[in-house]
Amino acid sequence: MASMLSMENPVFVSYAIAAALMILKIMGQGWMTVVLMLKTDAGLLNPEDLRPSPANRSPRPEQLDPHPVVERSRRMQRNDLENIPAFLVCGLLFVSVEPPFWAAVLLFVLFVLTRLAHTLAYATAQNHEVRAIFYSIGSLVIMIMAVWVLAVAVF
Amino acid sequence: MASMLSMENPVFVSYAIAAALMILKIMGQGWMTVVLMLKTDAGLLNPEDLRPSPANRSPRPEQLDPHPVVERSRRMQRNDLENIPAFLVCGLLFVSVEPPFWAAVLLFVLFVLTRLAHTLAYATAQNHEVRAIFYSIGSLVIMIMAVWVLAVAVF
Amino acid sequence: MASMLSMENPVFVSYAIAAALMILKIMGQGWMTVVLMLKTDAGLLNPEDLRPSPANRSPRPEQLDPHPVVERSRRMQRNDLENIPAFLVCGLLFVSVEPPFWAAVLLFVLFVLTRLAHTLAYATAQNHEVRAIFYSIGSLVIMIMAVWVLAVAVF
Repeated sequence: MASMLSMENPVFVSYAIAAALMILKIMGQGWMTVVLMLKTDAGLLNPEDLRPSPANRSPRPEQLDPHPVVERSRRMQRNDLENIPAFLVCGLLFVSVEPPFWAAVLLFVLFVLTRLAHTLAYATAQNHEVRAIFYSIGSLVIMIMAVWVLAVAVF
Repeated sequence: MASMLSMENPVFVSYAIAAALMILKIMGQGWMTVVLMLKTDAGLLNPEDLRPSPANRSPRPEQLDPHPVVERSRRMQRNDLENIPAFLVCGLLFVSVEPPFWAAVLLFVLFVLTRLAHTLAYATAQNHEVRAIFYSIGSLVIMIMAVWVLAVAVF
Repeated sequence: MASMLSMENPVFVSYAIAAALMILKIMGQGWMTVVLMLKTDAGLLNPEDLRPSPANRSPRPEQLDPHPVVERSRRMQRNDLENIPAFLVCGLLFVSVEPPFWAAVLLFVLFVLTRLAHTLAYATAQNHEVRAIFYSIGSLVIMIMAVWVLAVAVF
């Protein structure tokens, strides 16, 4: 019998696609923060970043103040870190309990779409409720998978 | 030979139970933060959260100030994020090196119990030392598993 | 056929070594923060930490102010959390797509070395550019692996 955790298992393939996309999402948010720091010329975190250097030719003390645009990207990244690593591991565990293909694809797609929608809602400063809906669905997806894994493991 | 990373391996089953519980812990702390934000009507993070909306009918600027109760929950979540993702991956690696069942169960149970105890100690504002003991045991569990994996992989 | 995710697969062994080292890095940064808090007698986060206790015999309110040395270690840990968990899962996925041994070892070694170099550069307050180079290489390694996984999974 082939391992469940291999590219021969369609459920694993769908997990691998969702996981790779979400990993690119985490890393992409980090790069977005860098781009916004360069664009606003602000949002630095460290005293040494005020030394004159190729990336900062005319340093000013206020560059160390929190900049709303950069801080927004950092909050988005923090929200990713509160959700995506748990999804990555929970999804892998979910694959190991051999769920129906449709259930796995449904949950993986739901998580990826609501996370991207959350990012878009956050980046464009939509109302709290809009973000909350996308956050909640993604969070529920993870919890459903975790409870499913628990149920299979315990019984 | 069946894969070590499958439900046919009792060590993997014990890992899956511990991991699923810890994933629910991470997600649960997020929901706890949401509940405390609603209960205190404070601890908002974004300027757009001050728009009048169903979740915030009478916005006030001071809702954006850090609220001690909400910030405590955020610190607890941060502490989780510093420990649980490392545990999740390290536990999986640990399963792959085929440890004795008793050792795996002991370490997994120790991590889960000390993490829950840490949460309880943090939520009820116990002395620093109480938190530190539970944090340290959980952290040592992860490091023991990591060193064990290294030893098996290198030798 | 043996599972790709087992110690019988040399690519998995190299992943396990890199992953275990990076897990020790995350946990080690937490301990570094603790050591620096003890050394500076500052950087506390919680009101209850100002109660007189064995770890804090002469509490002073200013111990709750951010301390530059402790905050630097916390920023380093945050940077780790933005990168290492994604590496841990992405590396495992990468093993599952059966890359050439040399490519896997190259990418894993590159990530581990640039992360350690980033830590050293951050701890010694090198210029922004130095940190940025090491951060960027590590981030690119993760993204290359993610795109590779996607390509194998989709085609």
